[in-house]
Amino acid sequence: MNTLHALASIGVILVAGAFVAAHPETRKPSPAASPIYGVTLPEGYRQWELIAPALEAAPLNEIRAVVGNRIAAEAYRRGAQPFPDGTVLVKLAWKQQPSAAFATATVPGAPTTVQVMVKDAKKYAATGGWGYGRFVDGKPVDEAQHRTCFACHEARAKEHDDVFTHYAP
Amino acid sequence: MNTLHALASIGVILVAGAFVAAHPETRKPSPAASPIYGVTLPEGYRQWELIAPALEAAPLNEIRAVVGNRIAAEAYRRGAQPFPDGTVLVKLAWKQQPSAAFATATVPGAPTTVQVMVKDAKKYAATGGWGYGRFVDGKPVDEAQHRTCFACHEARAKEHDDVFTHYAP
Repeated sequence: MNTLHALASIGVILVAGAFVAAHPETRKPSPAASPIYGVTLPEGYRQWELIAPALEAAPLNEIRAVVGNRIAAEAYRRGAQPFPDGTVLVKLAWKQQPSAAFATATVPGAPTTVQVMVKDAKKYAATGGWGYGRFVDGKPVDEAQHRTCFACHEARAKEHDDVFTHYAP
Repeated sequence: MNTLHALASIGVILVAGAFVAAHPETRKPSPAASPIYGVTLPEGYRQWELIAPALEAAPLNEIRAVVGNRIAAEAYRRGAQPFPDGTVLVKLAWKQQPSAAFATATVPGAPTTVQVMVKDAKKYAATGGWGYGRFVDGKPVDEAQHRTCFACHEARAKEHDDVFTHYAP
């Protein structure tokens, strides 16, 4: 490396450093977005309000819980469908695991998938107003899996704005 | 009714009315408290953070979800046991109901019981630091049922501060 090259490299590093310092959010890698929809895992969703738990029998054998952001929870409580823009629903899922304390009880085991629905009637006009994301270990699954979301939701839950889950009282 | 009696009655009504106006909280009947423990259904628990869902097989056939207040959720996340005073856990339960949309899915049906644990190490020193409440349709069940709470929790979950439910990641 000659001196000119070295100085140029230092210059690039300094400029890059100044940019990062001025834009601290650029230090964080942006969260992985789902194919087709660009949906990401929303910040703080694990603290959101429970909409309802559910079970999925074999072959998945999962226990699940859908949570929603404030816009989602308020829309459910008002019984307002279609859901307003800004609604976000997250379905957490775990393998069913026998309880150590009770023979009749089943509890969450290893987490499996986290699935996200984001309402934006304009952005996602071609898919009923919803963007979809399916994540395993925090990473979105492939495009082929994401191609299946809309058709199934539309076929089975059209009367409830493509949302399967109802609020558990 | 003579005039003096009538005037006295009006006076009582006016005094009572003034008291209620000055103390609006007295207009609301106080929530029903559990026998033995005096535990009530906590305000706003339906919006609390999900700790974990669970299943209960026959004969109950329930799907359940435990939620916790902020003190509870933070204690879980820190893995801190015993739970601190002020911890409140609420277990919601519903009958299992087949999903209308999916043959393999089960969703919450009619609500059954709501069960509450309140941590106060001093007040509930005789029962492991926990007060218990079991509610059906918002009303506490009888004393005999409340007599069973502590012994069962202590026998089956002593290593986890008498709490069955673990946090679902």
